[in-house]
Amino acid sequence: MRTDATALVMRAGELLEATRAQRPLVQNVTNLVSMDIAANALLAFGASPAMIYAPEETEEFAAIADALVVNVGTLSATGAESMDKAAAAARMHGKPWLLDPVAAGLLTYRDGVIRRLLRHRPSIIRGNASEIMAVARIAGITQEAAAPRGVDSRHGASEAEALAVKLARHCFCAVVATGAVDVVTDGEQTVRVANGSPLAPRVTALGCSMSSVMGAYLAVAPSPFEAAFAATALYGVVGDMAAETARAPGSFRVAFLDNLYSIGATDLVARLKVQ
Amino acid sequence: MRTDATALVMRAGELLEATRAQRPLVQNVTNLVSMDIAANALLAFGASPAMIYAPEETEEFAAIADALVVNVGTLSATGAESMDKAAAAARMHGKPWLLDPVAAGLLTYRDGVIRRLLRHRPSIIRGNASEIMAVARIAGITQEAAAPRGVDSRHGASEAEALAVKLARHCFCAVVATGAVDVVTDGEQTVRVANGSPLAPRVTALGCSMSSVMGAYLAVAPSPFEAAFAATALYGVVGDMAAETARAPGSFRVAFLDNLYSIGATDLVARLKVQ
Amino acid sequence: MRTDATALVMRAGELLEATRAQRPLVQNVTNLVSMDIAANALLAFGASPAMIYAPEETEEFAAIADALVVNVGTLSATGAESMDKAAAAARMHGKPWLLDPVAAGLLTYRDGVIRRLLRHRPSIIRGNASEIMAVARIAGITQEAAAPRGVDSRHGASEAEALAVKLARHCFCAVVATGAVDVVTDGEQTVRVANGSPLAPRVTALGCSMSSVMGAYLAVAPSPFEAAFAATALYGVVGDMAAETARAPGSFRVAFLDNLYSIGATDLVARLKVQ
Repeated sequence: MRTDATALVMRAGELLEATRAQRPLVQNVTNLVSMDIAANALLAFGASPAMIYAPEETEEFAAIADALVVNVGTLSATGAESMDKAAAAARMHGKPWLLDPVAAGLLTYRDGVIRRLLRHRPSIIRGNASEIMAVARIAGITQEAAAPRGVDSRHGASEAEALAVKLARHCFCAVVATGAVDVVTDGEQTVRVANGSPLAPRVTALGCSMSSVMGAYLAVAPSPFEAAFAATALYGVVGDMAAETARAPGSFRVAFLDNLYSIGATDLVARLKVQ
Repeated sequence: MRTDATALVMRAGELLEATRAQRPLVQNVTNLVSMDIAANALLAFGASPAMIYAPEETEEFAAIADALVVNVGTLSATGAESMDKAAAAARMHGKPWLLDPVAAGLLTYRDGVIRRLLRHRPSIIRGNASEIMAVARIAGITQEAAAPRGVDSRHGASEAEALAVKLARHCFCAVVATGAVDVVTDGEQTVRVANGSPLAPRVTALGCSMSSVMGAYLAVAPSPFEAAFAATALYGVVGDMAAETARAPGSFRVAFLDNLYSIGATDLVARLKVQ
Repeated sequence: MRTDATALVMRAGELLEATRAQRPLVQNVTNLVSMDIAANALLAFGASPAMIYAPEETEEFAAIADALVVNVGTLSATGAESMDKAAAAARMHGKPWLLDPVAAGLLTYRDGVIRRLLRHRPSIIRGNASEIMAVARIAGITQEAAAPRGVDSRHGASEAEALAVKLARHCFCAVVATGAVDVVTDGEQTVRVANGSPLAPRVTALGCSMSSVMGAYLAVAPSPFEAAFAATALYGVVGDMAAETARAPGSFRVAFLDNLYSIGATDLVARLKVQ
């Protein structure tokens, strides 16, 4: 491990403690599948979730929240209006926001909404490898067609790495492409996190909940890149810990939330596998 | 413990058995985060949940249901229309209904909806301490500004007690303000329940599910106050029992539902800490 | 057990393996309560869920998906539009689809939506006994009024059997009426599955998740009847297995998902009780 990687790992440990201590209020305009686990993950971790969903309320709440997470799963016209208002308001109030482009590349309507959301300049874009590759196409960086299979990735994160770097540079943001190995980049620095369990993609919306917890870090970290890395590290190590006691998806979900609650900076730093 | 408190505790035990035996049908016009756990809590407890949500159906269903629970989380214009219709129909058919004013005091739109719902005369208002204080302001009882942090309380229930009593008198209903100690009042009698675990607020929508189970009691109890007290007692003691085996939020949620299913009147009466 | 029943059981074992191997993409236009558990059940089993919900997206997605599941719980006008579009598109693209008529017979609006959906010719109709009896009335086969209590059945599957057979003949589809004993019929053949636990109806939307997993089988099985039987068999046996370690609904739900992940064809065939 190079020295700057070591420094990054140490900062991930510090950020875990700092984020919990500040208990940021995270607004989630998220999909109907993920609401339960995203709110539970934020609470277990130690942040304060608000699942403010409708256009009547998202804009006003964005002024109160410490960070915003927009997730385009189970998208509808009303949801799209909400997301647009929330992202615009977050920008206006100087609040950082994260875009989770669920199932990008599959559906015309959704890709249009993602294109419009990109104009509000997210601080982080987090998706599985296929989704990140699709967002790169939506952003006009590549012609290469890529799409997940439903919401499940078809690609490994290493396949997405080059496009993730370009996307980060193009959008001036951090990009996280998750997979067996996760890639985190801001276009300048790129790190890979090799933690995590194959059971994680067998639990619905666990990736969405990672975006929500990353939103908590965004409210506290000095840069989107550090927030993106620290939350990716946390989810990888918590996945490892959960897989030590759970052998199947039902109990893995329970163990995951339990470890998200109990993990300390020392565990995180000791177990993290950065490349 | 005074004699009338003892009598109240005994009645809570009797009501637990009576409510299970009658298995009331509880209509929930509730938020998107709580649907899963509210329905699961009602089923585990032994009641019959119906999450009838849209304005096309809420009115007709209110005539069939034994009680109605309205929860303003993840509020939208459509949801507000549904709530209004459901509460009006419940009143018309003589069915008791409960209002859960999630995040009251934070958002203009939501506070307006809560104000309109109060006109339909809920039998019980149940919220965390900050929410109850905010409803008191919405009802015009106080000028004091109070609001939760997102959906999490900023206040202890003791801070809310005086306003809870005033609110109960003003609205001719029972009021429950939950916290480390829960306050239950109908404006005449006030009791405090000192059971419960600090893990409970780390599980999303567990308070919403308490409102739903309280709705089941409303269908059976002789008065809103007794329903409010018995359900508050149940949730406190079940929280204590769950915390005996679970040390973190994921397994606490599972243990909570398990104990909601298995708890008997004897356990409830023996463990209840009433002040 | 007659020889053809033995053959059916063996095919259920083969279909379990074949469906997992193909990992079909199942589109769910489902209710707000079931999204989490339906997606988790599909993932735990080994299929790929997509909870594409809004009318802006359902039609386009139906061309991509391998099968469609339509569930009328928490129905709204927007949801009804989505279901209509999705079912029409599934038919046009030759994709099989399943109808789960939650709470049929209770509400005017919902029964009208179910009547219209029947015109799109579902491959399978799956509900509890009361719902199947109500759909038979909606389809004009009987005058007999029947309805569930909220979403819970009032009838045993044996009471529904004659109407289930008539409904299957009338709609040229397979029909599953679940209960303590489940009935599976295509109007020609009828089998009963006597597996399953009384804890299953104490977990919300577990029946909805069964419909979703049945949708995965529909994408792979040679006939709707075989898909219906194999998924009913799977859910019954997994219920038995879960009840061996779990004694209450919270842990039953976790154990159910765990066993849905780990069950193999041998377990299924050995434990299946067919009548």
